[in-house]
Amino acid sequence: MASIKFCDRKVLNDIQHKIDNKTKPQGALGGLEEIALRVALIQQTDSLQLSKPCMVVFAADHGIAREGVSAFSQEVTVQMVQNFLHGGAAINVFCKQHDIKLHIVDAGVNADLSDHPGLIHKSVGKGTKSFLSGKAMSFEQCGRALKAGEEVVLEVAATGSNIIGFGEMGIGNTSSASMITSLLCGLPLKDCVGKGTGLDESQWHKKLEVLQRALDFHRLPAQSDGIEVLTTFGGFEIAMMSGAMMNAAELGMVVLVDGFIATSAFLVAHALQPAILDYAIFCHVSEEPGHQKALEFLGVKPVLQLNMRLGEGTGVAVAYPVIQSSINFFNEMASFEEAGVSGRDEVNRV
Amino acid sequence: MASIKFCDRKVLNDIQHKIDNKTKPQGALGGLEEIALRVALIQQTDSLQLSKPCMVVFAADHGIAREGVSAFSQEVTVQMVQNFLHGGAAINVFCKQHDIKLHIVDAGVNADLSDHPGLIHKSVGKGTKSFLSGKAMSFEQCGRALKAGEEVVLEVAATGSNIIGFGEMGIGNTSSASMITSLLCGLPLKDCVGKGTGLDESQWHKKLEVLQRALDFHRLPAQSDGIEVLTTFGGFEIAMMSGAMMNAAELGMVVLVDGFIATSAFLVAHALQPAILDYAIFCHVSEEPGHQKALEFLGVKPVLQLNMRLGEGTGVAVAYPVIQSSINFFNEMASFEEAGVSGRDEVNRV
Repeated sequence: MASIKFCDRKVLNDIQHKIDNKTKPQGALGGLEEIALRVALIQQTDSLQLSKPCMVVFAADHGIAREGVSAFSQEVTVQMVQNFLHGGAAINVFCKQHDIKLHIVDAGVNADLSDHPGLIHKSVGKGTKSFLSGKAMSFEQCGRALKAGEEVVLEVAATGSNIIGFGEMGIGNTSSASMITSLLCGLPLKDCVGKGTGLDESQWHKKLEVLQRALDFHRLPAQSDGIEVLTTFGGFEIAMMSGAMMNAAELGMVVLVDGFIATSAFLVAHALQPAILDYAIFCHVSEEPGHQKALEFLGVKPVLQLNMRLGEGTGVAVAYPVIQSSINFFNEMASFEEAGVSGRDEVNRV
Repeated sequence: MASIKFCDRKVLNDIQHKIDNKTKPQGALGGLEEIALRVALIQQTDSLQLSKPCMVVFAADHGIAREGVSAFSQEVTVQMVQNFLHGGAAINVFCKQHDIKLHIVDAGVNADLSDHPGLIHKSVGKGTKSFLSGKAMSFEQCGRALKAGEEVVLEVAATGSNIIGFGEMGIGNTSSASMITSLLCGLPLKDCVGKGTGLDESQWHKKLEVLQRALDFHRLPAQSDGIEVLTTFGGFEIAMMSGAMMNAAELGMVVLVDGFIATSAFLVAHALQPAILDYAIFCHVSEEPGHQKALEFLGVKPVLQLNMRLGEGTGVAVAYPVIQSSINFFNEMASFEEAGVSGRDEVNRV
């Protein structure tokens, strides 16, 4: 298991001073200043760099998908994996736009996937079991998934990458994310269940009813252990993401968190290793109501608020240039002294 | 004066159909889908293109800056123009990042600016008069400023650019923007006055008191003519931006609107030519309270919500890659048919 350290705050004053001395009113770059500060804390330097950005998309299937909780059928998971490998999905487009290296991981899709240069085989099973009448996965499967996530990150880090985003594909996985978010944030289930890929009102009620039955069946105590929640309600892609996030933080990489499902994986990691919060940038807030609640629980602000709800890591990829802007202003903008611009303290105040 | 036509809605269904057939749940790219739709309406084609993006920053001084409404003194305007020309400001950094061609326009700075390859001379005076006891500018100056804005855009468009952003620099210009927003949106002045470059509480009260006196002095009727409001309370950079925005829309360019001051220029243009709204993308919402109100008045949603309040066009430049992402998904993503992915209608619904 990873052992993540909180970032050393010693450099905080120097970093803030550098930001405040740029030729702009104090705080005027808002969220960009917060991102620069975050990355500077992680990198512990005043010359920031994002090297070889990577995106890892974990795909897996979910037994719960057969209980009528999704607008799409389970076969769409493997079809979308093929779409990723052929370059036709949204995440391909956005990664290409920003030169983000894209890796697709079979974390447990319900199909036999052929070898492909873009595909990493880490399957721990042909999808989880339905958590309506048992645990989604065994402790052994969960352990293998966490370990596989670590392995993928080790390989990515070895290429010289210091910033990594995580995405997912798995029909039914908003149901897992709802259960995890409800339990780990201590929120009513109803507040954590959304319309996923596009349920109508009556389908949403059905989803909520199914998930409520699962909650009642398992009767996990409030604030259960992260691993207990993960094995009971998680997915293989969620477990693998949790492991990957923890390892990336332990290696001192910037961890880019996508939407509702990725954040549920982060919640598990955070329950196990609270210091991971120091390494994370939350790239967008999804339309899924549980995502906003989870971000509030963590006390973090998202980079983008674009009503996206696609997953795949698309929120990360679209936000990436904004994060790069934070690094660029920090490294490149002139200070008041360098530019010969009068600061507010030099002005005759009224 | 420009004569802007509303975009032809005939293509709307075809565009929406193309968006909905991409391999994603309907609407799942949220704001990106709205941006793609907007650009497709402007360009009237189903193969979108952003060509040679440009940013024009208009700088000018304000008589009202001498009444104690800003945390910075007037000399900072010309100092920041020099900073732009030497490449040290935030807008330089972000334009460089996204290969956006940057033009700086002297719209009426209180200084004699030397020639510089990056500077366009269009000054209509050495700053406006204080609008505390008279009109900020004459009708003749206003006419010249509007015309100069048109000329700048004509030159930019002639280079093959089809997307143009507008920014500004002018110590004191949030005061102008507050007056314009209050009058053209029919809002109480208090709701439109913010802390600008960083006033404290008592300085903010002083600013509000000064602006209230100006409002009482002029007693313009509610919903006054855009030109009347502009000449009374505007700045040369604001007038020039209004003219530039109108011409860009008339030429069928995508108009990228920055923050509070740029939006006040847009409000003037919109009062004169309501169809301009069809051509505009609002790139961010500023921390200035009046900006959010103005966006609500126009019924539009901003691309970014990052608590920025710097001006210079920085909101446009940081948002640019997000707009490019909208175009890219529209042009490049596979459809359900192309990718062999089952749509939701093909699924056994529960």
